[in-house]
Amino acid sequence: MKSSIIAVSEKEKARSFLRKIKGRVPAFVCVLGNTETAKIPGLSAAGANPDITDYTPPADAEFLFYEKCRCIPGVPITPDGIPTPALITRASLKLAGIPVFIAVGGLRIKPQVPYIDLGGLPGKDIRSGDAVENAEEIFHRGEVFGRSLASVADYLVVGESVAGGTTTALAVMLAMGIDAKGKVSSSMSGNPHGLKESVVGEGMKNAGVAQGDLKDKPMDAVSKFGDPMMPAFAGIACGASDEVPVLLAGGTQMGAVLSVVKGMKKDALKNVAVGTTRWIAHDKTSDLGGIVRQVGRVPVLAANIDFSASKHDGLRAYERGMVKEGVGCGGATIAALLKRREIRIENVIRETENIYNRLRGGIR
Amino acid sequence: MKSSIIAVSEKEKARSFLRKIKGRVPAFVCVLGNTETAKIPGLSAAGANPDITDYTPPADAEFLFYEKCRCIPGVPITPDGIPTPALITRASLKLAGIPVFIAVGGLRIKPQVPYIDLGGLPGKDIRSGDAVENAEEIFHRGEVFGRSLASVADYLVVGESVAGGTTTALAVMLAMGIDAKGKVSSSMSGNPHGLKESVVGEGMKNAGVAQGDLKDKPMDAVSKFGDPMMPAFAGIACGASDEVPVLLAGGTQMGAVLSVVKGMKKDALKNVAVGTTRWIAHDKTSDLGGIVRQVGRVPVLAANIDFSASKHDGLRAYERGMVKEGVGCGGATIAALLKRREIRIENVIRETENIYNRLRGGIR
Repeated sequence: MKSSIIAVSEKEKARSFLRKIKGRVPAFVCVLGNTETAKIPGLSAAGANPDITDYTPPADAEFLFYEKCRCIPGVPITPDGIPTPALITRASLKLAGIPVFIAVGGLRIKPQVPYIDLGGLPGKDIRSGDAVENAEEIFHRGEVFGRSLASVADYLVVGESVAGGTTTALAVMLAMGIDAKGKVSSSMSGNPHGLKESVVGEGMKNAGVAQGDLKDKPMDAVSKFGDPMMPAFAGIACGASDEVPVLLAGGTQMGAVLSVVKGMKKDALKNVAVGTTRWIAHDKTSDLGGIVRQVGRVPVLAANIDFSASKHDGLRAYERGMVKEGVGCGGATIAALLKRREIRIENVIRETENIYNRLRGGIR
Repeated sequence: MKSSIIAVSEKEKARSFLRKIKGRVPAFVCVLGNTETAKIPGLSAAGANPDITDYTPPADAEFLFYEKCRCIPGVPITPDGIPTPALITRASLKLAGIPVFIAVGGLRIKPQVPYIDLGGLPGKDIRSGDAVENAEEIFHRGEVFGRSLASVADYLVVGESVAGGTTTALAVMLAMGIDAKGKVSSSMSGNPHGLKESVVGEGMKNAGVAQGDLKDKPMDAVSKFGDPMMPAFAGIACGASDEVPVLLAGGTQMGAVLSVVKGMKKDALKNVAVGTTRWIAHDKTSDLGGIVRQVGRVPVLAANIDFSASKHDGLRAYERGMVKEGVGCGGATIAALLKRREIRIENVIRETENIYNRLRGGIR
């Protein structure tokens, strides 16, 4: 195993998962969803301001194909001007020639790329206790699509883009009895745990649900407190994992996805791993390992991307705890490193910098 | 080569194409579109009555996944009760374990399955001379999707479902200077060439376009006289054919698709073949070979499916010239026969009969 991929937990299983996928030909799927929850001030940095978070997922998807966005000028940035992790994902997939498929769980703004529609609607504010319509249907369509893609690809890498997604993840996990308080990550360097917990608390109160009440009811938990990415992502993972390994590319949101996967089809956990970044694996303000362990013995891997030496402040900011993960950037990097021996982590870093250079002007 | 696959034209190229794809792992894509043209009485038999033709493409797509339709009771049938060729497609894909992807060029009614949205709108009546909006965008999104799928599948089989599609095909071919008069096929045993030509003539007159005027303007021809399946299908074929062989699964509509492919990217013709049924290849009321020859030296293959001995009148009707082709049934059968040596044409016929048996009650 290359030291550019860190086995974070379940190390034996992690190595065995890596052996299964090394040198094979993956497909990358990015699952999009939105939640009105993201518009609560102070909650998400996935957008220059709360109202623009609707555009973040479609803009990320467009960037993966065209290296530029179509629905917004420039690229998604945080309020401080730090660019979307889609830059890293694009760099990795491009270097390794890994194809991209975009799956839409539910969105207000549709991406201007070919995308797989799974029949969902935009997600609502979880404080209503009624966040996702049609969760079961989205899950089943995801399952069908995942199975189809798995019959042609050797394995899947599935990422996500949902602004506000760690708050919905916290809510779904708490409802399903996973102790995730203080453990979800944030795209901001100061993690607003208190605000997230109060938003989640309001939703649970309004829905009359206490912690753990929906332990074995993943679709209920998603419908009340989730976002439409979750049933789509979980469905794709469940459908594909019968046939091929699935790398769940993301941070602490993967705890919610894994909980849904486990609730819908326990056996699927045997053929999945979580792939994230070092920034998440070493994050002091969150605890991905502590979350995943509660769901099951699923290995966690991290791409050892390091931007400390970058000449761009927008990338060095990742080392200060900004952004950290998203658009499956960690998993995509792992997949690129494993696909061809010639691709090293330095190449991914350099290609990300090249992309950044080409974008200047679009990024502050 | 098995005698269950007939090399209809360009026989040397046909054999070479078959060698390229034999034993490989394909993905099947069914491209959907609608055209208001289908509602002109007497034009299409792809639906029990003209108004229901809106439901034929989504119902076909649903059938491919679930072996039953979700948006209509039963399955699409002709006014005489003859079932959709999706039965044959489903039988072939199921036997061979070939995955299905649904791409939507433009539809009034969306299928209740995962589908790839290519950003198109429902097609309008070609008598307006303004039939398809956004053709170029649909084409380019198709191209992107085709390229992605081609990086994981060994080759693509692309079929279509568009009620009224031979009339739009006739119009596009005439506008592009292909002499297709009296040569397009029909889902009815009596082929209403006169009606089709008068509809096309009205459209061309209203648009001020004479035969051959749009010879080198495929997007113009599609925008004025086509249906939204065409730019999607041609885009997918163009995007994929850089990487892998593409079998265009259909009847005389493939003449229009090939014309668009040639106009957008001439080199793509080198890596494609048309795959159809014996019913089309031997049809006295149409001339697929005569159409394709005018576009280029593209091989035509036909699956030698024979329902003469079927116990179901609904399938024997295919031998009397009903339906003949659609939902890529000929190409899907060819792909199934080539994927695994154990699959013979008799297995496809028997599986189609089994599916028919299970459906009884749904079909008159």
